[in-house]
Amino acid sequence: MNAPLDGLIILDLTHVLAGPYASMTLADLGARVIKVERPGSGDDTRAFPPFKDSESAYFATINHGKESIALDLKNVDDRLVFEELLSRSDVILENYRPGVMERLGYGWEDLHTKFPKLIYGAVSGFGHSGPDSQRPAYDMVVQARGGVMSITGERDREPVRVGASIGDIAAGMFLAQGILAALLHRQQTGVGQKVDIAMLDCQLAMLEHAIALTTISGEAPRPSGARHPSITPFETFHASDGLFVIAAGNDVLFARLCEALRLPIAGDERFATNPARCENARLLKRLIEAVTLEKGKQHWIDLLTEAGIPTGPIQNVAEVLKDPQIRARNMVVDVLDQAGKPAYVAAGNPIKMSALADPSTRPPAPKLDEHRQEILDWLESS
Amino acid sequence: MNAPLDGLIILDLTHVLAGPYASMTLADLGARVIKVERPGSGDDTRAFPPFKDSESAYFATINHGKESIALDLKNVDDRLVFEELLSRSDVILENYRPGVMERLGYGWEDLHTKFPKLIYGAVSGFGHSGPDSQRPAYDMVVQARGGVMSITGERDREPVRVGASIGDIAAGMFLAQGILAALLHRQQTGVGQKVDIAMLDCQLAMLEHAIALTTISGEAPRPSGARHPSITPFETFHASDGLFVIAAGNDVLFARLCEALRLPIAGDERFATNPARCENARLLKRLIEAVTLEKGKQHWIDLLTEAGIPTGPIQNVAEVLKDPQIRARNMVVDVLDQAGKPAYVAAGNPIKMSALADPSTRPPAPKLDEHRQEILDWLESS
Repeated sequence: MNAPLDGLIILDLTHVLAGPYASMTLADLGARVIKVERPGSGDDTRAFPPFKDSESAYFATINHGKESIALDLKNVDDRLVFEELLSRSDVILENYRPGVMERLGYGWEDLHTKFPKLIYGAVSGFGHSGPDSQRPAYDMVVQARGGVMSITGERDREPVRVGASIGDIAAGMFLAQGILAALLHRQQTGVGQKVDIAMLDCQLAMLEHAIALTTISGEAPRPSGARHPSITPFETFHASDGLFVIAAGNDVLFARLCEALRLPIAGDERFATNPARCENARLLKRLIEAVTLEKGKQHWIDLLTEAGIPTGPIQNVAEVLKDPQIRARNMVVDVLDQAGKPAYVAAGNPIKMSALADPSTRPPAPKLDEHRQEILDWLESS
Repeated sequence: MNAPLDGLIILDLTHVLAGPYASMTLADLGARVIKVERPGSGDDTRAFPPFKDSESAYFATINHGKESIALDLKNVDDRLVFEELLSRSDVILENYRPGVMERLGYGWEDLHTKFPKLIYGAVSGFGHSGPDSQRPAYDMVVQARGGVMSITGERDREPVRVGASIGDIAAGMFLAQGILAALLHRQQTGVGQKVDIAMLDCQLAMLEHAIALTTISGEAPRPSGARHPSITPFETFHASDGLFVIAAGNDVLFARLCEALRLPIAGDERFATNPARCENARLLKRLIEAVTLEKGKQHWIDLLTEAGIPTGPIQNVAEVLKDPQIRARNMVVDVLDQAGKPAYVAAGNPIKMSALADPSTRPPAPKLDEHRQEILDWLESS
């Protein structure tokens, strides 16, 4: 069974998160990824905690299965090796400040002339155009500037960042989409193109509903805590032992909820329609919690699930990793060490495909420059 | 200039957000998307606020440029039309509860036998396998169960949801990646495959760093408000007129920050290293704000940018839509109405490609069943 990207070679200059996340996805789809790292320290994340036996788990869980060669792109001999690699590669990925590759003589215009089939993928904070193109890329800065923080947090308190690095990760996901699209395009045309992903652009691309609300009402939306902004009850509630979610999105579900909780309020005009429930949301929450505080969340989740009402726990990351549905979906995988033993835990590939193998382990992340000799031999021989 | 997916036909049964977001991306890459909607009410989001002239802006900004035909997949005549459409399509997308398509006679096994080149894309709450496969899909439920809420919010307060619908949107993005990969695979093999995306899986796939932290330390991470969990100063600060971000990620940047703010504390042992700064973060924040509260955020952003310190505003969605960088990147587009006039505002396509047109308008979203006659004529003629 061939993977979709079998035979594809990706030369990966990216470091930290957005770019490596994209090349990780492409590796999971079958591509061969060769990381070109700075000699000495390599990818910055080799020094990021947490560590296990002095190796960075951060690095290992994003760079598993990739090869590594250390090259100084300002050194004349290393440039020869790099250019040999370019001539064999289908894709090059970089996340430098826009202009850096041009100064090295490896910008899109240079490479496209010499290697017309090469696809060039760039990810940066603000993109390869526009007045702020030169600004450095940071997840928190783009989360703040891009609007998602302004709608995340409690209603009357200061905004908070999204706990996952979605500034980087959304960009990595859009970069992967762009590369896949460019590969399809190359099938038809025979030539590569440049994909230019800006972390800030990607933030806005996730705000569909908020944009509609802003432009129609004239007012930017505000955070809504753990509640749905316009449906009630659709939020977190306290049980005796923690928080869980009830998402009773319409009158039918609400009536069923009242029955399941033995709360005789479905006909009460303060709660009879969604607008009425929204208006009386704080009262309704207390009436519901007066019941749910009496037992544990699992009791309520089981009861409401039986009654066909959407519900579920708030889980911390440890709980998610043990979740039976997550386990059944092979979404927790072991990254092996050099001896072939499980060493780190990582998320599985969420892109489940009927003709793509879905292994429960991942090959090791490379040591810095680990594949130099193999790569040089390969360049020599082919 | 051909778009990457020119000539591709996507039959889109999906409704609400995750699926339509994916088909919107694929349409932006050149595909022809034919929405098959339920007769009478069509896609649920046609009834979602906000409205403009009785049309849903929510629907319009996600479904621009798609065609619509209303078909009842239990009606014998409509099934004939649907099967004609299947025979012409490259991709079918659906987001029903797993099992629904099988009961209609249109599950993956049925379709693959009749239409071996057809690619089948499914998105659901929990996936087409596993004990909870049958649970209904809701963005808040998967955000809660999938772990991101447990790391989003203020440190000592209850978790909050991410204000954007990332439960749906991450799934839409992974679905798009899977479809593109399946198209590449079909080039080699001549046959389609099934792509099975679970919203819950996609949540975990975004938690890379949190998974590493959990499994190495044994403890699940907790929310960190508007601060970076392990770097200081890397958070929001008050200016006279609002909040802005300073991301001074190392000792060099911190020293430069102190100089720019005229805060003579760079040598103070309480702030000399990142671990020390993290330990004294609350004190440091007050010292910095004693300076920054004196002037407006734009003053500080300009000053710090000049000094090469990563910084930026927290913007609400209205401000993001006016951001000069966002505008320069063509990330705010007009969705036209049937008369060709700008009617709604939507996010642009963040996948900027050198061989892909990047228009500043989008064609109208379809009225329900608008393209019936055109589609029937097309089926007749070809």
